[in-house]
Amino acid sequence: MKRYLKGDSWNIIEEDFHPNLQRNTESIFTIGNGRMGQRGNFEETYTGDTLKGSYVAGTCFMDRTRVGWWKNGFPKYYSCMPNAPYWSGVNVRLIDEELNLDQWDIQQFSRKLDMRNGISNRSTIVTSPKGNILSISIQHFYSMTHRDLCLIRYSVASINYTGKISLVPFINGDVIHESSNFNEKMWSILRTETNNNQASIWVQTKRGNSQICCAEEADLSKNGQTINTRPIRIEKEKIVGFSLGAEVKPGDNLILTKYTAIASNLYHQQDNLMADAISESSEAKSIGWDKLYEEQTNYWHHFWETHDVIIEGDNDAQQAIRYNIFQLKQNFPGDDPRLNIGAKGFSGEKYGGNTQWNTELCVVPYCLIGVESKMARSLLLYRYYQLPKAIENAQKLGFKDGAALFPMVTMDGEEHHNEWEVTFEEIHRNAIIIHVINYYLECTNDKEYVAQYGLEVMIAICRFWNQRVTFSGRNQKYMLLGVTGPDEYENNVDNNWYTNYSCIKNISFTIDCLRMVEHDYPDSYKKVTEKTEFKAKETERWKDIIERMYLPSDEEYNIYVEEDGYMDKDLNTADCIPQNERPISQHWSWDRILRSCYIKQSDVLLGMYLYGNDFDKDTIQRNYHFYEPKTLHESSLSYFVHSILAARIGETENAYQYFLLANRLDLDDYNNDVSEGVHITSMPGSWLALAEGFAGVVFKKGVLHCAPIIPKKWDSYSLCINLKDKLLTLKVTQIDITFTYQGQISQNIVVYDKNVILPSNGKSTTITRV
Amino acid sequence: MKRYLKGDSWNIIEEDFHPNLQRNTESIFTIGNGRMGQRGNFEETYTGDTLKGSYVAGTCFMDRTRVGWWKNGFPKYYSCMPNAPYWSGVNVRLIDEELNLDQWDIQQFSRKLDMRNGISNRSTIVTSPKGNILSISIQHFYSMTHRDLCLIRYSVASINYTGKISLVPFINGDVIHESSNFNEKMWSILRTETNNNQASIWVQTKRGNSQICCAEEADLSKNGQTINTRPIRIEKEKIVGFSLGAEVKPGDNLILTKYTAIASNLYHQQDNLMADAISESSEAKSIGWDKLYEEQTNYWHHFWETHDVIIEGDNDAQQAIRYNIFQLKQNFPGDDPRLNIGAKGFSGEKYGGNTQWNTELCVVPYCLIGVESKMARSLLLYRYYQLPKAIENAQKLGFKDGAALFPMVTMDGEEHHNEWEVTFEEIHRNAIIIHVINYYLECTNDKEYVAQYGLEVMIAICRFWNQRVTFSGRNQKYMLLGVTGPDEYENNVDNNWYTNYSCIKNISFTIDCLRMVEHDYPDSYKKVTEKTEFKAKETERWKDIIERMYLPSDEEYNIYVEEDGYMDKDLNTADCIPQNERPISQHWSWDRILRSCYIKQSDVLLGMYLYGNDFDKDTIQRNYHFYEPKTLHESSLSYFVHSILAARIGETENAYQYFLLANRLDLDDYNNDVSEGVHITSMPGSWLALAEGFAGVVFKKGVLHCAPIIPKKWDSYSLCINLKDKLLTLKVTQIDITFTYQGQISQNIVVYDKNVILPSNGKSTTITRV
Repeated sequence: MKRYLKGDSWNIIEEDFHPNLQRNTESIFTIGNGRMGQRGNFEETYTGDTLKGSYVAGTCFMDRTRVGWWKNGFPKYYSCMPNAPYWSGVNVRLIDEELNLDQWDIQQFSRKLDMRNGISNRSTIVTSPKGNILSISIQHFYSMTHRDLCLIRYSVASINYTGKISLVPFINGDVIHESSNFNEKMWSILRTETNNNQASIWVQTKRGNSQICCAEEADLSKNGQTINTRPIRIEKEKIVGFSLGAEVKPGDNLILTKYTAIASNLYHQQDNLMADAISESSEAKSIGWDKLYEEQTNYWHHFWETHDVIIEGDNDAQQAIRYNIFQLKQNFPGDDPRLNIGAKGFSGEKYGGNTQWNTELCVVPYCLIGVESKMARSLLLYRYYQLPKAIENAQKLGFKDGAALFPMVTMDGEEHHNEWEVTFEEIHRNAIIIHVINYYLECTNDKEYVAQYGLEVMIAICRFWNQRVTFSGRNQKYMLLGVTGPDEYENNVDNNWYTNYSCIKNISFTIDCLRMVEHDYPDSYKKVTEKTEFKAKETERWKDIIERMYLPSDEEYNIYVEEDGYMDKDLNTADCIPQNERPISQHWSWDRILRSCYIKQSDVLLGMYLYGNDFDKDTIQRNYHFYEPKTLHESSLSYFVHSILAARIGETENAYQYFLLANRLDLDDYNNDVSEGVHITSMPGSWLALAEGFAGVVFKKGVLHCAPIIPKKWDSYSLCINLKDKLLTLKVTQIDITFTYQGQISQNIVVYDKNVILPSNGKSTTITRV
Repeated sequence: MKRYLKGDSWNIIEEDFHPNLQRNTESIFTIGNGRMGQRGNFEETYTGDTLKGSYVAGTCFMDRTRVGWWKNGFPKYYSCMPNAPYWSGVNVRLIDEELNLDQWDIQQFSRKLDMRNGISNRSTIVTSPKGNILSISIQHFYSMTHRDLCLIRYSVASINYTGKISLVPFINGDVIHESSNFNEKMWSILRTETNNNQASIWVQTKRGNSQICCAEEADLSKNGQTINTRPIRIEKEKIVGFSLGAEVKPGDNLILTKYTAIASNLYHQQDNLMADAISESSEAKSIGWDKLYEEQTNYWHHFWETHDVIIEGDNDAQQAIRYNIFQLKQNFPGDDPRLNIGAKGFSGEKYGGNTQWNTELCVVPYCLIGVESKMARSLLLYRYYQLPKAIENAQKLGFKDGAALFPMVTMDGEEHHNEWEVTFEEIHRNAIIIHVINYYLECTNDKEYVAQYGLEVMIAICRFWNQRVTFSGRNQKYMLLGVTGPDEYENNVDNNWYTNYSCIKNISFTIDCLRMVEHDYPDSYKKVTEKTEFKAKETERWKDIIERMYLPSDEEYNIYVEEDGYMDKDLNTADCIPQNERPISQHWSWDRILRSCYIKQSDVLLGMYLYGNDFDKDTIQRNYHFYEPKTLHESSLSYFVHSILAARIGETENAYQYFLLANRLDLDDYNNDVSEGVHITSMPGSWLALAEGFAGVVFKKGVLHCAPIIPKKWDSYSLCINLKDKLLTLKVTQIDITFTYQGQISQNIVVYDKNVILPSNGKSTTITRV
């Protein structure tokens, strides 16, 4: 755990510069607008340790696969969102010195990520090696209202310096993607252009069809007066920009405003990329900083009205939950079903910006319960559109007849991961895709979506399960052999309980939906069954699988068992591991981890979270108390699940501790990996811990059920929930719960198993807590 | 299967050039003398597909490990015997043309590997693009009597050409090692020198401490008369040599003799390397080709007197068994316990020239039963000297108190492999090391070796087993969880029968040896127990492990089971797999292979082969008939084991078929991989199939037992066996067996379970076959 950032309810604040933690801070200070974003890099030259990283959603470089020992079936390429040209550059030059916080003396330093307004701020007072003192302050944001714009206001005041100061806005196309498999440069420069007012650089990924063009304009003012000097052009092979300068004396203040537009061929005609980027940056300059800034703060104020969570009595929790909500929004727009969200968003290179199952586990449920239902639908459609590729993926592994295996890691639907135990065996990823269709249906009751899109995906996945099971003659049971569950600290096991159970849940829900669609949407049924060549008799074996699926359990402990052989292990508890051997992933050899009883996250508990209605409280409790002491939480997906389950079995304080861990995972760097980026896709987990855990929210056929509890430490918490596409605010105190619904039609909900009628039009109802 | 080489009992012959199979032929025509060797490359320029490869035993480059996803515990480097400077170069130049079989027209072509004499021959008649016709013949050998020498006689006769022919002997230090992980050049050139008569090049591995120096001299004769022209020196940065030429007219014949000495710092003072290499090549020239050639053929004639196998009535089998014996000898001298033998010897880059457990499984038993007992002892000592590294390897994986895990792949004792399922989990490699000590003791009754060397290794391995087992509370049994057996088509399994059984065999033999050494060699016992801090009470738990080790079995089939979960698989037979999907390693995705019932080689059967005395014929038969139909033999270690087991259960014709497969694995390229090198370390397997299988040879406390059978097709077979360090020839016909023993003391042996006294001094005894 690292706690060096200041507590504050609306801001993330670093006071004093921590060069040794620069990579961490850069990750945490990530800014973006969904379309693009960047790590919290310094705009000017910095020779200390840093990972400069800017990224554009949907760009893709096909990195050649690197393995030591090739296994048949490995994909040839690993898709990768490449580190884009660095478009945020602003250098500061005195006569013969250049600003560099690695080498200049720092008198004052602070940076602040202002979440209420969506602005990143930095200010510092520094002395150059020659004794020149400057006061610098920078504001930087990605416009949420003009999605191609990145805006920087760079202000330099002289404290004791007399002479020329040049401010150099530039774009650097010569970028290294640190985790490139073969140290390849990922972009080709197609064209650069610089004229008096504009500089632009147009690039294409070397393998892949992504093109972007970045164009910048800038203006300079001195003591509030615009200076119309002729800029000196900078035009190198891969770097463009210009130098704008003015003579200053102590007390003078120069402000450079840099308007950068980044146009990608995902949203612009390829031929027009440069023209579009140039005209957008021009237009931005003519709109002007003040207006754009105002639009930005208005956008975020409006956002918080419908998304804020307020936790009274716990500043740490308050800060972190806002941070998590803010980062997800900044990193993912959710308005384009061609796009998904990488585990690190725009905060780093790890996992290559690829889609993983975290999306379905954390992001989709957050969107559905929270007020992002369009985002949820877009994410569901993302998988729908990639179904043909998922069928191809399965074919490559020997499956047939329209069976689909969705990828573990992808950008375009093709599998791009290459660890056999993950790529080939973590087939549970298929299960969550049907699960969220189910979840979507429960939350929205939108049966038409199932008829039009969902069913096709479901049939393909059930066909996969049907072919993937093995019938064990000696046990007269269906089994799933050779799988890896979500707990990757077990590999290539037989009968992972979670996978087996998910398989029958998938099939059973699909059979229900087939019946529903056949009855309610006969045209869709005909269309889907024709397209997929589905025959009703396929369900005969499916039903047999449901009936005779093997589910490992243990009689002595009366629990479900992670997988075959788990109970033969040396059954210790995590507190037996010395602290200096944690995390074990960084200290133990892989085989030792695999054969130990220690789990990254429990698969049985995950199943009990996802399929909560199937298990009574006692069963959850027994399993929770068996697995929780063996769990190391060396996964960002573990804490929030434990928090929710603890809440469900009434262990509020335990739930609270796990909530804090899930909530401040990045801000306090619990997993010692924030330098590589923040865990964008598991951030919504902390919100789910609040909603599904403390508030006990669950939707059943479109009807909201809840049963709020509250940790002792808190005075109250409130959050916004989507009910029939209208805002429901739920505020829980130690005493009561207040519901405020904005819909125009009053709604039936169920609170503590009792029906409650919510009045409409913003009227509130208060119910005493049980 | 590829059958393009001509059948012949003493030679491997390629008639007509097969450029598409050039890599295969190069592998098969590998020549060497144990200290160094090379693939059967053309000496002159060849622009067609080829893998030029020359190697020096014991040289090592530390190749950086390449993996896609790093697991804790992986070694940083992969040791590699680097492709050495190409010292066999001889180019042939006309006025403005250069000989190149890829571009010249070939009228006649043949090459012949003469195993009786240890000489590689090639002859060809070719027409240049300009119509010049040359007749070329080349002899090439590595001296078995001067181990630093490589000798080439390159003869060029003009058929219709008039003009100058230049012959250019050269050494090329600019070598690419094709399977380098990061395309690095592996050698630095330390110095090159060329004077009128000599050219030399001195190199060092870039990572690693190996140095070699190659020096060449040459002479040229025309129509039998030495020509004393002044050679033109060739001295480039990385290539040295000279050009020797003469004017010719049709009918003239030029002969270049090239004497190359290769000195390595394993056998030469580093400072003297260049001087030594130069003086050795000079000395070779003064000894002269004829004398060196004669010594070579004498050496091999003598060798065959004591190593030949004669199979009458089966030319294919005859050719292949000689090939296998010849290649092992050429690739491994067995006179230096610092050296072991790579799976491909000098025939290719695959597996990096590293030591694997094939050595113990195939090579050591061949050496012990055959007449290479010094080689066997040297190979045993190799592991003994690497024990400290094996203890370090185990420590890296979390073991302690002197437990040892010998490496899966190594050159210096350190583990250099990096597939977690192999590196960390194929712990069975430890077992075979104790097993061959046991085997050595049975063959030689050399108890002193055990006392002086063996016991220390055995204690360390038993300590590993002791820490590696898990006691399953629910089963009250010891288990080995998370292992990979020799059958790598199952990964990360629990309770691999072979590993579990080997573990108790190891411990039990060690306990016996402890008792024996304590009693017979009390001084050694004291020395070893002090050095290892061994306490007698350690054996208490060891004994408990023997008693309570879990051994998976199946009641229905009455067989032992490969590992937990195996019997849940879909139990098909290999003939269900379409031919176009074989080998499955090249067609099926890895997960599909893993969860299928198909095995590369059966671990249960391997155990029944190695621990043959423990199982009655019925048990072997039941297990054989259960596993054999499921076995794909996609390993070079499978066929010979099946041949031996089939022989043991009296299925002679089945044994014969498997013998043929083991025997001609490389010559007929059954596994479609000969282009990468031949399977040097499994070649002795075919000899073992003859000795342990057909002849039924087994040693018990130094006493030879045998029970020969013979395939119908054969008239007879004979082989040489080591009995008390003297030669015993055993000849088996359809009717009888004749023993001829060269020892001076008559010996008791057991034939078909009956005692027989062998007379001494070359007298023969004949016994009727049963």
